[in-house]
Amino acid sequence: MFKAKVYVTYKPSVLDPKAEVIKTALSRMDYHNVDDVLYGKYFELKLSGTEAAVRKQVDTICDQLLANVNMETYRFDLEPVTEDEA
Amino acid sequence: MFKAKVYVTYKPSVLDPKAEVIKTALSRMDYHNVDDVLYGKYFELKLSGTEAAVRKQVDTICDQLLANVNMETYRFDLEPVTEDEA
Repeated sequence: MFKAKVYVTYKPSVLDPKAEVIKTALSRMDYHNVDDVLYGKYFELKLSGTEAAVRKQVDTICDQLLANVNMETYRFDLEPVTEDEA
Repeated sequence: MFKAKVYVTYKPSVLDPKAEVIKTALSRMDYHNVDDVLYGKYFELKLSGTEAAVRKQVDTICDQLLANVNMETYRFDLEPVTEDEA
């Protein structure tokens, strides 16, 4: 059993309106020491199987379902999960 | 300069319709080994200041802006950023 932590973020070339809204709100809150804001999606999946199989599967899931690869990039980490935690 | 990685997720008691959609899609893709799906938001902020000040500030930003604390929980990690990377 593995836990996959998936991060999906816009490619740097894509304008991210939500991040812009957050930047505006922060400057309205007088937080002028905040330099850069990145907004993305975060997923946790629990999957059973061997590490190699799970890695390949998570990659396919990201590519086909979780990320729009035209505008977004993704990365993920795999962590083993013991049955007790699961 | 610090980079704050913020994770905002629904509280376990709150129904997450997007996670349900992903679960349905995965079972339609014949991925029956996926057990659990969690959907959340992910933010990266770059802030200048001392670690203690930045930690307090990020906590306030999460509480007031990034998370709806009625339905969501947040956690964040701080990483020092060297000026070269920034």
